[in-house]
Amino acid sequence: MITSITNPRVKQIVQWQTKARERRDAGVYLAEGFKMYEEAPEEDIREVFLSEEALKKAEESTGIREKLDRTGYETVSGGVFRKMSDTQTPQGILCVLGRREYGMEQLLAGRAPLLIVLEGLQDPGNLGTIVRTGEGAGVSGIIMSADTADIYNPKTIRATMGSIFRVPFLCTEHLEETVLQLRQKGIRTYAAHLGGEKSYDAFSYREGTAFLIGNEGRGLTEGLAAAADEYLKIPMEGRVESLNAAVTASLLMYEAHRQRRWTVPPA
Amino acid sequence: MITSITNPRVKQIVQWQTKARERRDAGVYLAEGFKMYEEAPEEDIREVFLSEEALKKAEESTGIREKLDRTGYETVSGGVFRKMSDTQTPQGILCVLGRREYGMEQLLAGRAPLLIVLEGLQDPGNLGTIVRTGEGAGVSGIIMSADTADIYNPKTIRATMGSIFRVPFLCTEHLEETVLQLRQKGIRTYAAHLGGEKSYDAFSYREGTAFLIGNEGRGLTEGLAAAADEYLKIPMEGRVESLNAAVTASLLMYEAHRQRRWTVPPA
Repeated sequence: MITSITNPRVKQIVQWQTKARERRDAGVYLAEGFKMYEEAPEEDIREVFLSEEALKKAEESTGIREKLDRTGYETVSGGVFRKMSDTQTPQGILCVLGRREYGMEQLLAGRAPLLIVLEGLQDPGNLGTIVRTGEGAGVSGIIMSADTADIYNPKTIRATMGSIFRVPFLCTEHLEETVLQLRQKGIRTYAAHLGGEKSYDAFSYREGTAFLIGNEGRGLTEGLAAAADEYLKIPMEGRVESLNAAVTASLLMYEAHRQRRWTVPPA
Repeated sequence: MITSITNPRVKQIVQWQTKARERRDAGVYLAEGFKMYEEAPEEDIREVFLSEEALKKAEESTGIREKLDRTGYETVSGGVFRKMSDTQTPQGILCVLGRREYGMEQLLAGRAPLLIVLEGLQDPGNLGTIVRTGEGAGVSGIIMSADTADIYNPKTIRATMGSIFRVPFLCTEHLEETVLQLRQKGIRTYAAHLGGEKSYDAFSYREGTAFLIGNEGRGLTEGLAAAADEYLKIPMEGRVESLNAAVTASLLMYEAHRQRRWTVPPA
């Protein structure tokens, strides 16, 4: 059992919790909590840390106990776990996971892909919420500009509630080119934009669809918006000028999902 | 100009930023930033603080300059403002506002009220996002249980983006009774509940409607859910068990808005 916060493995975890670059260079990310551990793909798990108290709790569940036998784990004292954790009330279980690399062909799988394209989104919680709602709405994948918040930020991972393990995503420095590529492949691209005149529910999203969502404060850059096939708007009452980025993405993804649910799937 | 952080007015603001009880006892709340100041109802503004730098910026806008002349203001040094502010990159303008009290009759105004009922929602950001999306979707008001996050929390106020000034709300210790009252007044009440079998878009929300949304982790209590007319569900793909509370509320409010937009208003 690790009982000292000066232990090198503990210090390494603290680095990975706070430094995006260190996580990236090591090709890892962290996930905390029992739900996350349970849903994490076994082949991605590199290390597991459990507080003594959490180990007792883990032993009550056959599924978790057996998974721990397979993945292995290290116990740490309660004080050490609090140091390693990113949360204020830690559950006492943390795992280090290897990153997955997805290719565009994975995001474009299926008859009618449904994609979310994020440009410069800044809030890690918003990003995680989009991944979570995205899985719920059945998206094929998420494409991000290089200046979007780090999807491996612990706050993002937590907000995904496990969807990070299942939704394909990729990050690109050439988002405009990527959008043009999508169009060439027959994906209809829609920019959520204040200049949109047609309401989001007046388009059909039953064929391949990509929604472009911009930064929380500035929205989409003009260059990227101009690369889209269509502008759309979400109608707003009162004096509201825009909605939260995760709310905008959720409304669009679920409008597509609503339309697709009422379509008979191809034989 | 105030240049010392030991100034009693500065100390008072710091108290109000951090202590819900102190804010409540004084009947006030705080709002930061130019957008919030511009949208704040003049009759509610009790005090305004500006950093020297923000004052220069304010003088560039005729609208803000004239509003400052009417409401009055106090300048403070940059260091003092950073101490008073709740944000990491303060805009340099903060106002103290008197609270409004809304009655049920205000929330029930109009032919077909659209209400959001929140039970024990804990995240201040989620609550503020619901107020913001609520104004956008044209809700008549928001009803909260007493154990919901403080709507006057600075994080909530910020997330409302000004909608706090325009959306009527009330807080009650007897939420079940309130829901029964709504039903007696002909408002159809819908519980967002894992036990729901019918999809949220399979109901008509063109008449008086209230959506019941529960706590982020636990959902609605059985007692409150049982008090509703109907259970509804949001269909979810993959392994997603629930959506973020603000996302759930937004999908429901905008589904009602979508249906109502296509209805010819009464002559």
